[in-house]
Amino acid sequence: MGIVSKPENATPILDGINGPEEIRRLEDADLVRLADELRRDTIAKVAATGGHLGSTLGVIELTVAIHAVFDTPRDKLIWDVGHQAYAHKILTGRRQAMAGLRQDGGLSGFTKRSESEYDPFGAAHSSTSISAGLGFTAARSLGFGTGDVVAVIGDGAMSAGMAYEAMNNAGALGKRMFVILNDNEMSISPSVGAFSTHLSALCAQAPAIGMDAVMKKAASMLPEPFRTGAARARQAMGALTGTSSLFEHMGFTYVGPVDGHDLPQLLSVLRTLKGIADGPVLIHAITRKGAGYAPAENSADKYHGVGSFDAETGTLAKSKPGAPSYTKVFANALTDEASRDRGIVAITAAMASGTGLDVFAKAHPERMFDVGIAEQHGVTFAAGLAAAGMKPFCAIYSTFLQRAYDQIVHDVALQGLPVRFAIDRAGLVGADGPTHAGAFDIAYLSNLPGFTVMAAADEAELVHMVATAAAHDSGPIAFRYPRGEGTGVALPERGEPLEIGKGRIVRQGDDIAFLSFGARLGECLEAADMLEAHGLTATVADARFAKPLDTAMIAQLAKRHDLLITVEEGASGGFGACVLQHLTETGQLDGSFAIRSLCLPDRFEQHAAPQTMYDRSGLTAPHLMATALESLVRKQQKQPNKKAQLAAI
Amino acid sequence: MGIVSKPENATPILDGINGPEEIRRLEDADLVRLADELRRDTIAKVAATGGHLGSTLGVIELTVAIHAVFDTPRDKLIWDVGHQAYAHKILTGRRQAMAGLRQDGGLSGFTKRSESEYDPFGAAHSSTSISAGLGFTAARSLGFGTGDVVAVIGDGAMSAGMAYEAMNNAGALGKRMFVILNDNEMSISPSVGAFSTHLSALCAQAPAIGMDAVMKKAASMLPEPFRTGAARARQAMGALTGTSSLFEHMGFTYVGPVDGHDLPQLLSVLRTLKGIADGPVLIHAITRKGAGYAPAENSADKYHGVGSFDAETGTLAKSKPGAPSYTKVFANALTDEASRDRGIVAITAAMASGTGLDVFAKAHPERMFDVGIAEQHGVTFAAGLAAAGMKPFCAIYSTFLQRAYDQIVHDVALQGLPVRFAIDRAGLVGADGPTHAGAFDIAYLSNLPGFTVMAAADEAELVHMVATAAAHDSGPIAFRYPRGEGTGVALPERGEPLEIGKGRIVRQGDDIAFLSFGARLGECLEAADMLEAHGLTATVADARFAKPLDTAMIAQLAKRHDLLITVEEGASGGFGACVLQHLTETGQLDGSFAIRSLCLPDRFEQHAAPQTMYDRSGLTAPHLMATALESLVRKQQKQPNKKAQLAAI
Repeated sequence: MGIVSKPENATPILDGINGPEEIRRLEDADLVRLADELRRDTIAKVAATGGHLGSTLGVIELTVAIHAVFDTPRDKLIWDVGHQAYAHKILTGRRQAMAGLRQDGGLSGFTKRSESEYDPFGAAHSSTSISAGLGFTAARSLGFGTGDVVAVIGDGAMSAGMAYEAMNNAGALGKRMFVILNDNEMSISPSVGAFSTHLSALCAQAPAIGMDAVMKKAASMLPEPFRTGAARARQAMGALTGTSSLFEHMGFTYVGPVDGHDLPQLLSVLRTLKGIADGPVLIHAITRKGAGYAPAENSADKYHGVGSFDAETGTLAKSKPGAPSYTKVFANALTDEASRDRGIVAITAAMASGTGLDVFAKAHPERMFDVGIAEQHGVTFAAGLAAAGMKPFCAIYSTFLQRAYDQIVHDVALQGLPVRFAIDRAGLVGADGPTHAGAFDIAYLSNLPGFTVMAAADEAELVHMVATAAAHDSGPIAFRYPRGEGTGVALPERGEPLEIGKGRIVRQGDDIAFLSFGARLGECLEAADMLEAHGLTATVADARFAKPLDTAMIAQLAKRHDLLITVEEGASGGFGACVLQHLTETGQLDGSFAIRSLCLPDRFEQHAAPQTMYDRSGLTAPHLMATALESLVRKQQKQPNKKAQLAAI
Repeated sequence: MGIVSKPENATPILDGINGPEEIRRLEDADLVRLADELRRDTIAKVAATGGHLGSTLGVIELTVAIHAVFDTPRDKLIWDVGHQAYAHKILTGRRQAMAGLRQDGGLSGFTKRSESEYDPFGAAHSSTSISAGLGFTAARSLGFGTGDVVAVIGDGAMSAGMAYEAMNNAGALGKRMFVILNDNEMSISPSVGAFSTHLSALCAQAPAIGMDAVMKKAASMLPEPFRTGAARARQAMGALTGTSSLFEHMGFTYVGPVDGHDLPQLLSVLRTLKGIADGPVLIHAITRKGAGYAPAENSADKYHGVGSFDAETGTLAKSKPGAPSYTKVFANALTDEASRDRGIVAITAAMASGTGLDVFAKAHPERMFDVGIAEQHGVTFAAGLAAAGMKPFCAIYSTFLQRAYDQIVHDVALQGLPVRFAIDRAGLVGADGPTHAGAFDIAYLSNLPGFTVMAAADEAELVHMVATAAAHDSGPIAFRYPRGEGTGVALPERGEPLEIGKGRIVRQGDDIAFLSFGARLGECLEAADMLEAHGLTATVADARFAKPLDTAMIAQLAKRHDLLITVEEGASGGFGACVLQHLTETGQLDGSFAIRSLCLPDRFEQHAAPQTMYDRSGLTAPHLMATALESLVRKQQKQPNKKAQLAAI
């Protein structure tokens, strides 16, 4: 870390800052110096640990300005996504802790309530900040003490419907709050969508705003009765200048564009607005991702997420070459399938490179759709494509697919449309932590009638599952695979469709059966090895499908072993629960006592009187009674002398 | 049905219509008569069956105009929500079948792909139509044959972020498609939000559009190179007239407002646009919910959803008085709690009357927030309120809460914020059918770390659960309850907080144990009665909590009975799965063989290297091996001679 020891890298002002209250004591000229030191310190810190660098560099001046003007933590500063908050962490008592950024036991790479009182609302998924900020705002107006609310949200995050929903509500409530639009024309890759074009138009129409214009805006924020007149004047001015923006239609006062790297300008805009705003205000700040660090500014993704690097040169530490990533294997396999099938189209929600679909887009540009950070729309858009006879592959990380859960249920599953879900980052994901864990997809997909749910044990399996999904045109199908490198197995020349609902025995033993769903298969094999030292042999099976289950294989595993262990990279209620419900339902677990779990059957019940629907579902008294009798008979057949045994105890 | 036999109610033109192609052969004057007949026929049909009347009456002229101008079913007409499509059903071969509307085996109350080729995309939840329509549009541009796309969406549905996401994508793709905004200033109750105000402003600024204006708009839809000049002209005109709309910012050509009940005008607007549009067009049609039927127009909800009624007078058939509905009991209990606790606030997503929160709003108007059809925002807004120290109750139907699943995971559960979820319409819901079933909430909530999940067995229990939720300030909590009337039990004066994680034994027996979660408790008691005829006695228990489970009670039920049956009004992966996973984990189901299901543990795993995270989760080889050994030992202790038994077979 030679960079820190050089004189030009000294940080005398930053060294004196233990918290934002000290920032607020600085002269403006020192704030400019502070921003410079903060930028260098952030680069040095992230050079050592790796992390999301580009986004923080884009908001260095905003970070300083907000803490200088607003009374944090009483005023609530809410960073959307939160990966741009490294400089904020440095200024709010976490400078030393940055050495452990994203490391085990260290700081989160995002904002986190449990980490600091300066993080009033944690994030990691995008587009939540205006909603959360409006919650604080509404609470304030009901006497639940807090100060001002400042939400900082990127232009990419604004493509999510949630941000629009929040603006719609905030504009109607009309309470004072500040939204700073951090417009760098990127999310991870360049922003897409009509809204993005609208922002460009706003920038083109007007020069970066000066104080004159801010003062003019200020007029529109005066209390009644001044406001009505001012609003009319503003409307007239908007008509004349053509700067009327979407935000104004949503009930916000629009201020901007301002230069997000001009600290004196930011300070004066924020101070002015803080003095006079009495409704929701949107401040449109133009920033550059990676600003002030040439290696970042010159890279395509602006150092969005990087490993460790040399701070002086920007040279990234080489990662040792390993097996190809699951992501890459998926992308190549799909691109290949698509070259033989013109019906295949791919959908991403602002994650072209993350999902590998940038590869697909190169080969089939007209069949690739980046819908923006808009998972809800993306899934229903795919459902529309499927209804029109195409074969859409929705490539969305497990954790982000949660955003489209209702669309999966209502638009895809209920209509039985053959949308293919390529679920990347399934299971635990490492440094991105719990917000990005792909924990729940097995559970939330496997109880949807008509769905087929697969998980890849290795990257060769993934290739076959892409082929399986391409071939499966009779209903929705999903396949999940983990983050990171594959296992290094040989890849097939071309994927072969798997038989739906059939697992495979990978290793045969006698005592114990491991039934793995997904990429824990290797661990199961290793555990089988370890058990041999204890004189026990284990069968290891790869379920491949959580739905439909391979019931024949499961019956064999149960019958021929003392113990069956299901293993999955997901939360409870998933694959293991499916196996358990199947085994109990069929009496295979009947022992000293039997258990049945009655729930809605695996189909969508059509409309009728509720009692009729429940009757058809087997959830009315006669069915409960019949289930009890049948289950008891089955159990007695298995253990005829159980009653006698019980009596003897 | 005397109304149909009267001469003035004769429908000679409608009688000749077997499908839209016959509509397209009619003269315009006859189309006007057809609309009149169609309105009367719709009223007569719904008078007999009940259903969603008001919304269909608002689109009678639109329905006729669209089918007259567009080439359905080759052109894809997509009704958002789909409950306004009764007249569409009558015109598309389902007129006779309307007698079975929403009845068992009869027509769905919504559009449905399996019902007709004229329903290219089914609906029931709102705001999906633009996304689905864009799917058809994109497929068309890739050579997957279909004609034009016409999506009809209400102004209320436009408050959902999904509609915005779809416009953002459609505007950027720039393909020809038609979105008709059916603006009646209502969803079920009056629309809320800044967007609604924007629509009013558009209407106020400009008189209903005439053909002159349409022709002007038409200029902007000409192909390049004309378009650039036309666009400039249009921009200038927008600046002069001040009619610049949000839709134009989203890349749509905006046409309107037009009078949605003036059929000749609608016909000419649609014909003109059909001839020239080459990008996305939004047609802003002003309609009146319940139009043309005085009893509907004069009622507050415009006959949104009604039972059967007298068509001539509009007098609704009296429903026999019964027990109070769960909804009403919830609303009264919450209103009462809020009168003692100023921290309680209520959030609804455009369902104030459906959730009963209109009652709450009367007593505590400043503490009630209707966020519009915006469940994503609503939940995170509630999380913000909770972070500010308040006690938010989010009252959202089970099926619609699916829209906010990621917000529940990411903003509420991960941060452990005490948001209260009042989940109405849990379980099957009758005439609204599978799209509205509350099937999945138990499953998708019960595997979230830190969540408390309750279900009310009757309306008295519901009162206690409201009190429990109000008192539970240490994390998120949900309680679910069914649609419709309660059981008629006496209601407590005031709710008493339940002990978290404690169920109750309702009836004691010896042979069988029913463990009910929710409102099937009565059926379990009835089944217990029926079993007595077979010489068997049953214990009936009310679990109250799916999470945390009452493990002591479950152990007793398992130990003391031959058979344990769990019962719930939800899909697999829910309460029964929780009980099964608990029983297997603790070895209580060890029989002829044992089973364990290893999955991610019930906590959010903090960031670390993936292998470390899996190691902590107990999903690496050493843990798998240890689990195998421990499980075998436990099982052997229970059945020491099992190996010998197996050998003897």
